[in-house]
Amino acid sequence: MDFKNLLARLDELEFGDLYEDDFFLTWDKTQDELHAVWTVADAIRALREENKSAKIFDSGLGISIFRDNSTRTRFSYASACNLLGLEVQDLDESKSQIAHGETLLETANMVSFMADVVGIRDDMYIGKGHAYQKEFSESVQRGRDEGILEQRPTVISLQCDIDHPTQMMADSLHFAHHFGGFENLKGKKVALTWAYSPSYGKPLSVPQGGIGLWTRLGMDVVLAYPEGYEVMDEVVEVAKKNAEEYGGSFSVTNDMAEAFKDADIVYPKSWAPFAAMEERTELYGKGDFDGIDELEQRLLEQNAKHKDWTVTEELMKTTKDGKALYGHPLPADITGVSCEEGEVDASVFDRYRQDLYAEASYKPYIIAAMIFLQKIKNPKAKLEELWNRDQERWSK
Amino acid sequence: MDFKNLLARLDELEFGDLYEDDFFLTWDKTQDELHAVWTVADAIRALREENKSAKIFDSGLGISIFRDNSTRTRFSYASACNLLGLEVQDLDESKSQIAHGETLLETANMVSFMADVVGIRDDMYIGKGHAYQKEFSESVQRGRDEGILEQRPTVISLQCDIDHPTQMMADSLHFAHHFGGFENLKGKKVALTWAYSPSYGKPLSVPQGGIGLWTRLGMDVVLAYPEGYEVMDEVVEVAKKNAEEYGGSFSVTNDMAEAFKDADIVYPKSWAPFAAMEERTELYGKGDFDGIDELEQRLLEQNAKHKDWTVTEELMKTTKDGKALYGHPLPADITGVSCEEGEVDASVFDRYRQDLYAEASYKPYIIAAMIFLQKIKNPKAKLEELWNRDQERWSK
Amino acid sequence: MDFKNLLARLDELEFGDLYEDDFFLTWDKTQDELHAVWTVADAIRALREENKSAKIFDSGLGISIFRDNSTRTRFSYASACNLLGLEVQDLDESKSQIAHGETLLETANMVSFMADVVGIRDDMYIGKGHAYQKEFSESVQRGRDEGILEQRPTVISLQCDIDHPTQMMADSLHFAHHFGGFENLKGKKVALTWAYSPSYGKPLSVPQGGIGLWTRLGMDVVLAYPEGYEVMDEVVEVAKKNAEEYGGSFSVTNDMAEAFKDADIVYPKSWAPFAAMEERTELYGKGDFDGIDELEQRLLEQNAKHKDWTVTEELMKTTKDGKALYGHPLPADITGVSCEEGEVDASVFDRYRQDLYAEASYKPYIIAAMIFLQKIKNPKAKLEELWNRDQERWSK
Repeated sequence: MDFKNLLARLDELEFGDLYEDDFFLTWDKTQDELHAVWTVADAIRALREENKSAKIFDSGLGISIFRDNSTRTRFSYASACNLLGLEVQDLDESKSQIAHGETLLETANMVSFMADVVGIRDDMYIGKGHAYQKEFSESVQRGRDEGILEQRPTVISLQCDIDHPTQMMADSLHFAHHFGGFENLKGKKVALTWAYSPSYGKPLSVPQGGIGLWTRLGMDVVLAYPEGYEVMDEVVEVAKKNAEEYGGSFSVTNDMAEAFKDADIVYPKSWAPFAAMEERTELYGKGDFDGIDELEQRLLEQNAKHKDWTVTEELMKTTKDGKALYGHPLPADITGVSCEEGEVDASVFDRYRQDLYAEASYKPYIIAAMIFLQKIKNPKAKLEELWNRDQERWSK
Repeated sequence: MDFKNLLARLDELEFGDLYEDDFFLTWDKTQDELHAVWTVADAIRALREENKSAKIFDSGLGISIFRDNSTRTRFSYASACNLLGLEVQDLDESKSQIAHGETLLETANMVSFMADVVGIRDDMYIGKGHAYQKEFSESVQRGRDEGILEQRPTVISLQCDIDHPTQMMADSLHFAHHFGGFENLKGKKVALTWAYSPSYGKPLSVPQGGIGLWTRLGMDVVLAYPEGYEVMDEVVEVAKKNAEEYGGSFSVTNDMAEAFKDADIVYPKSWAPFAAMEERTELYGKGDFDGIDELEQRLLEQNAKHKDWTVTEELMKTTKDGKALYGHPLPADITGVSCEEGEVDASVFDRYRQDLYAEASYKPYIIAAMIFLQKIKNPKAKLEELWNRDQERWSK
Repeated sequence: MDFKNLLARLDELEFGDLYEDDFFLTWDKTQDELHAVWTVADAIRALREENKSAKIFDSGLGISIFRDNSTRTRFSYASACNLLGLEVQDLDESKSQIAHGETLLETANMVSFMADVVGIRDDMYIGKGHAYQKEFSESVQRGRDEGILEQRPTVISLQCDIDHPTQMMADSLHFAHHFGGFENLKGKKVALTWAYSPSYGKPLSVPQGGIGLWTRLGMDVVLAYPEGYEVMDEVVEVAKKNAEEYGGSFSVTNDMAEAFKDADIVYPKSWAPFAAMEERTELYGKGDFDGIDELEQRLLEQNAKHKDWTVTEELMKTTKDGKALYGHPLPADITGVSCEEGEVDASVFDRYRQDLYAEASYKPYIIAAMIFLQKIKNPKAKLEELWNRDQERWSK
């Protein structure tokens, strides 16, 4: 779609509530709002590809809080902030004088006097990540209401215990471009399956985010995992309701082959069982680190029973015309490359490598679009202005 | 005061010596110079609140050196630099190849080829922090004189062992706004008192900075602490001289109740005894870490004898009309919130929470004002230009 | 040379191949290309000294990867990026979620979606650093060719196991300015000698970079070291070939006094023997850390036999008119200052301190010039435009 058509598309959508709001869970947002994010992501990408500046801030901070290590998301967030004119300032809790017992209400306000956006990744403990993000948002809202902050930084979830919205939104935009538009995703079968990994405790937010979002695109979403690897009930309910409402379907199976059969898209990825992650959170709360070690051992053994949950060439052949699109948030556990036995055979990964990298390339634009829609009252007019202003990003 | 009046206020003040100079101790500065900082801080805040860019640098680095953990000051400094157009570059000594025995003369010059300002926090050891900051400044001055640096970065103390100028200046501006102007602070009683904390070794720069600055505002400054918690003699002398010169008073008491009685402002905060901190510095110099541990135990026991030095509702009732303004640099040790027993009751803290956050909100502007006055030859004209230029900070 | 003359100088040079290319080894570049870097470095310095903005990017990231601690190079790179309008984003591998076994092809592309330049320092292991930099470059080139990246970030070596181009180029520009132009370096004798240091394993890239570059300036390059401190054979071959081609000479001696005799420039600096560094790399590869400790002991003992390889006043007297220019990449091991016995006497170092700091001041400009030439199609026109645009860097 060219730039003009993207602007026209925005005219068809209602998305005013994104303005000055946060982005936590995709299922908090309306269909139009999601499409506004995708449309603006494409538009900002077009600006950049045409070497047109997309700066909307002359100064301002984009705070990042990574409560877990990160490369892809860290650089995506930094890229998005920089593109829009915000300087990233990391709240590194290890270097911070955050007093023991200091309230988040206080910390959040103390760092936000000149912050326009805050990106938070907190996916470590069940029941914690999303709660932390919400509390951060409520804290700065309160600071704004009380006149302490002259602006409220909006909050973007860079992954929580429940959802991974920037990832799943980026994946979806990749799928849409691959199949020639969101309308073409209707009726497509996507297999979101567990896969074996020699490591432990991978976040549930990916499968949960996937079933919570892709069921809104009219797709036939199949979630597959070995018994015992259930995800959060609440999100399963969201997926069921979505399927009904948006004309797709949602089903769960314990059979990887069944999920792959005739799939248009496969998205196999390891995760930890929800029940085990809840147990881990409780053990952590009690400071029972021996218990956590014991749990880890148990989970690794449990994983090891399902080494056959891996993407082979044979399995790929069973997909639609043997040519399903293979997706993954990366990095993948590649058999013989990054581990002895893992999620996917090297030959399969290699064949889809370009697709996978292209998939990842959408994330900075998705984040930039979220910020843009949170910060600009009339996004269509502003995009038009940026296009016509034609200020070079890189003065070649 | 509106923007015009702020500019008019600058006309009444002599502050040319701030240009290209450093900011270490408030008592190095004239009365007019301090008022210039406060006035420009208000003016820069007005620019930002009106969404007008305050950028005075097209490029340039604002170096930060934090020899101790920091959140509030780190973000305040980053915010100030960013607002004025400087990119923060942290000199993280743990990641640096600073050779054993490398002179500060060398390090300071090596990082300053494109630095416009350097903010340093070094409050850990008595006799070290201020000395380090001065030596850093002299080093870059020498580099400038010798033609090595094409500009001299100015140095701002973000806290040393003696003073905490950005904090105390921010607190003062908050007091002034609360009471309707600096002229209204005259004759007001401020109780700067020690308070119990279960932790150890909190910096002396806060009480010292407080008595060194507030005695210049014509206030009746009462410093209160349990016997043994004396602060630096030199600063006590500064406070006495100030009181005489500027028409207020300064007294010391070992009675918290006496200090609070009829106070207009109370500022209770834990600190370590000066003598003990000197001892600690000596032990550190000798590498006697057992001695340091032993000293810590001794100090914690000493602290524990003064748990009654805490801000209760009863104590607050004894202040002026029972309504003194409660101030603190944050984070506070709040009884029942961040510790079992601490500096202040939760109900008192909560009642003043908004005031405390508002107090903290001045720090980025105080730092920005210091940089502005160090870097701009004619601040009034430049502020007027920025106001009239009316370049949006955030292109909403 | 004034700005106009610098621009005129560019007209005489052929350097189009620098555009969109990387900078790894000086001997990969033509004579004209090196002179283009020096000329543009001077021009950018002139812009900055005239307070004219040199910004060529409205937004964009300059990624840094330091696989070893760094102060000087870190700040030089940050300064250069900032001056040109790029925000530095550090890829700190300790905070990154770079999966065990993740390919560099993947990491490089994942961080580069909005990166314009990548600076890499990797000098720790023989056979690794340059290889890593090349692989990084090939990875992003592949990403560009495959349409994953919309631009290819160019790569600048901030030091590898073979060469230290930004350092040696900065040193050379200092030499040229000191002697009144590159043409005056012809026939000058430069003594690049080993010197005693109480520390171990200093990189070979400095002596190698020196003989690889200075033999191209028509200089008489003498490399001196105690037996056993040989450098890489390949680079010695490069130096020999250069000497022949560019009309200077290259010789090796095991006699420090011989090297110093009548030298116009001396550059004494400790390094580790190549053979030992190869052994260390092998031990590291085998995970033999006891072996590495044992090797370290052995090397320290070997070093200690050559404490007489140190720069004394007596030795300096034997140089040309007793006044050779003393150069060093810094920090130096100064006898009685940073160590008991080291590379240089304190009185010698002190006498040349200003020269040494001036030498270091060229590095940010060399890096900026490399980026400029990589990113700007017509550097002369752009420099002229920047000069005439006359946008203030610092709005004084």
